[in-house]
Order: sequence, then C-alpha cells, then structure tokens
Amino acid sequence: MLSKNKEHLSVVKIGGNIVDHPEALESFLSDFHRLEGWKLLVHGGGVMASRMAVRLGIETKMVQGRRITDAETLKLVTMVYAGWINKNIVASLQKKGCNALGLSGADGNTIPALRRPPVPVDYGFVGDPCPEKVNADFISQLIEGKITPVFCAITHDGNGSLLNTNADTVAYSLATALSGKYHTTLYYCFEKEGVLKDVSDPESLIPSINREEREAYKQQGIIAGGMIPKIDNSFQAIEQGVSEVIILHAKNLLSKKGTVLRESNRASQKE
Amino acid sequence: MLSKNKEHLSVVKIGGNIVDHPEALESFLSDFHRLEGWKLLVHGGGVMASRMAVRLGIETKMVQGRRITDAETLKLVTMVYAGWINKNIVASLQKKGCNALGLSGADGNTIPALRRPPVPVDYGFVGDPCPEKVNADFISQLIEGKITPVFCAITHDGNGSLLNTNADTVAYSLATALSGKYHTTLYYCFEKEGVLKDVSDPESLIPSINREEREAYKQQGIIAGGMIPKIDNSFQAIEQGVSEVIILHAKNLLSKKGTVLRESNRASQKE
Repeated sequence: MLSKNKEHLSVVKIGGNIVDHPEALESFLSDFHRLEGWKLLVHGGGVMASRMAVRLGIETKMVQGRRITDAETLKLVTMVYAGWINKNIVASLQKKGCNALGLSGADGNTIPALRRPPVPVDYGFVGDPCPEKVNADFISQLIEGKITPVFCAITHDGNGSLLNTNADTVAYSLATALSGKYHTTLYYCFEKEGVLKDVSDPESLIPSINREEREAYKQQGIIAGGMIPKIDNSFQAIEQGVSEVIILHAKNLLSKKGTVLRESNRASQKE
Repeated sequence: MLSKNKEHLSVVKIGGNIVDHPEALESFLSDFHRLEGWKLLVHGGGVMASRMAVRLGIETKMVQGRRITDAETLKLVTMVYAGWINKNIVASLQKKGCNALGLSGADGNTIPALRRPPVPVDYGFVGDPCPEKVNADFISQLIEGKITPVFCAITHDGNGSLLNTNADTVAYSLATALSGKYHTTLYYCFEKEGVLKDVSDPESLIPSINREEREAYKQQGIIAGGMIPKIDNSFQAIEQGVSEVIILHAKNLLSKKGTVLRESNRASQKE
C-alpha cells in the first residue's frame, strides 16, 4: 500500500468550536499555513449556524447529534458554512500568503453525496458523501497547482439539491479518496487534547490506539459518546488506505501531539 | 488586437432581479449551459440580500444605488451571495451537466480589490477590483480544464478582509483581464430588452450603439440613470480589449437579441 513514490498529503479537519473563536481560529490558520507539504482543510461551523438560526427564528432540531435540515435550515447552513465561514477562512489564509480556494462538494462536483433515506429518521436535506465518487483528479490538480482547497460541509446530490453533511465525514471521504494518490494523514482538530482516559484531565491523553486497544477502551467506557463514531470512522479510513489518523487539540497541529490511530503497533514501529 | 488564434470567451453577468425568480433563473441557467464555447458567469443578488436584511433586522442603507456595507452587512451579503445564491447556481448547473465551480474574488486570489476611500462617501467594506491584478492565468486554467467559473460579487483586499463589490464591475474586470487571452464578449443580462428609446416600450430597443451615438443618446436623455455607468463601463471594456458588449434580457441570451455596443460602426461592419 505504501509506495515510496507517493507524496504526502495532510487532510485537516477543524471543528466548529474553534471556528467560533476568532483568536483561536486565526492562530490555527497560521499553524495550518506553516504545515509543510500538500494539504487541504475541512471546517465545521455548527455553533455559528445554531446562533444564526436563533436570529432568523429557525428552530434547531437535533437527533443523535445530527441537525434535522428542512429547506429553511439548508438555506441557513449554506449561508453560514459555504458563505460566511468559508470565505472568511479563505481571505484569512490569502492574507498569510496561502493561496486558498473555498469549495462545497457541489463545486467542480468534488463531493457527490446521497441524500439519507427518510427511515428510520427523516433528516431532511442531509447527505452522506460517496467516497468512491469524490473528484480526486480535480482536487489533486488544484493541490499540485499550489492551491489549498478549503471545504465546507455542504455537498450535493447531483440532481440540483445541496445537502448538509457532517464535516468529519467530509474529511474522512476526502482523505480516503485521495489516499490512492498520496500518503495521507487525516487530522481531526478540536478543543480537546485527543482521546483522554479521564475526560476532565488533559494530562490523561492516550498517545496511540490500535484496533485491539480500541475494543478494550470501548469496554472500559473511555471511548464513549461522540468519540465512538470519530474513532470508528478513523479506523475505517485506515482500512481504506489512509496512512494515519491523529485526533488532537487545534493548537497542537504542528507538534502533532494527540492520539495517533494506527492499524497495529507493529505497523507503527515499522515506520 | 483581434488575433485569429484566440479562442472565444463569453463573460455573462446575470442581475439580481432574475436571480430572485426561481423559474426565470432556472430557464436562464439552461440557456447559459447551452451557450457554446468557453464561458463564465457572474451573478448579482441585491434583492435577496435586502430581504434577508429585513429578516435579520439589519437596516439597508443605499447611497447612489450602492449599499453601505458595515460589518453586519458584509456578513449578510457574504452569506447570501457567496453562500446561498452561488452554491444553488452551482448545484443547478451541475444537474444540467455543466461542471460549475463557485468563486468569490478571494478564492484562488482571483479578484484582488481596493477598499474605497471613506471620502466623499464611506461605503464601509466596499471594494473595486483591480483588473490588472485579476488572476487570469488561474481562471483560464479552470476554463480550459472544462470547469465553468461562477463568480459572486464578493472580493477581498488581500489583507484578510472581504469586500462587497458591484457585480457589473466584477464582470467588467473579468472580461477586461481575460481579453488578453480570448476574444471576449461581455453580456449584461437583466430584466429589460436592452437600451430602450422609450423605457416603457420593449419594442423600442436600440439594436446597436457606437461611441458617437452614445453621446447623442445621453443628450437626448435616452441613456440615463443607472444605464449611464453600465454603458460607460461597457465602452471602457471595449477600449481595454473586450471585443463586444451586449446588454440584453436574460431570456435572449442564446438569440443575443439586445443592444450591441461596439467601438464604431466601421469596426462592426468589418466583422
């Protein structure tokens, strides 16, 4: 799987809580700009969407952590994610000398998605990307033309409809699709140090987790709640060709200090 | 100026009144998709921005037809133009099989702009593009890679700030900058037949105007109000290398029936 000829690509996902804090975001974008090698960014923005929903009098309905997206909510998230947040990140990166280009999954047909079936939960205009249909050729043309793609978590169904999409899943899909062309590291940056033994103690960081350890941590309740899909997603990415997944605090992007997920400790030592 | 080796490019600007009517927009986008040769689209959206301003309780202040853009208004127009309108147009074109890519002037540093000086009127976050700094190389790479760029009228100052920009001017700047690479036709599509002798009579269309005729029409009051900057802009575009400018109803894009502006009748006959 690991060819010596492939170049390295960093797929970096930044969570909505960081995006919502201008100073933290600015500092993160400076680090992202300094990250060496090919790279792309995926951003969330749920906190700002929820606040704008209040201003517009749109009720926020969440089921299992996912936003129910009716037509009004789709308009809202498209405005906030693809408009305000995406263009501000792009302008900020341009200021730093990073030639960023903002994209939704509709742009250049980069991320075709399937609208979720309405059973058992009708999420409305919510879609899941088709990783095998990601336009990896076009994205790699941009990257190798020294453009840094910045993706928001809006995709499309190819039939004229935009779809609200989970940003972790967008990052997973891009990393997976591009791992055929690059040695790909997927970074999930958020406001915690990584996977913690004790969620209230940043010092209790687990530096690495392999597949067997994951099961043990799940049984002990250390991997729980929202961390379960993130970790399962990560191991699926590795299975599909992504070299490494790191879950870490946004401030640690350059030091890479966080929880490293790898197929097995053996593979990890080989590197 | 006109080299036989250059390919043809259509720069099409669609006004906010058409964008605001889903059926008219859909029909226009079908025609735009059928337009042959290289092309790009620039869209307005002022009507929808004003309506969203009301919902958000943001006061709309216009001076000489231009929106005063404070920080809240910049957020609003970026959400509406770069988010909602731009991504919906892209998704709609993708449905038709047109590989569209939405852009603001910040994306790929395509349209650097200068913020207007605060004297005599402080328009706030409003900028005018620098046509000589338009990233024509990158835009032509996209176009020749069979991507159709779709620009909203948001640019940036290169110093981290987005800028609200007149969509006619964005179209003019793109057409001018790209006329070095292509025989460029600039289409200003809106909800009237073109320049009318009698504004209430669509049958009174003036089929073509040259520079000398423009002066006569101005003196007669036939070219007046908002049409003056559009026409002056158009002749400036021609002066800067654009082959032809057509002012026309959005429904007439394919027939090209409208008011054609040309340097002189002689030049027009040569073609």
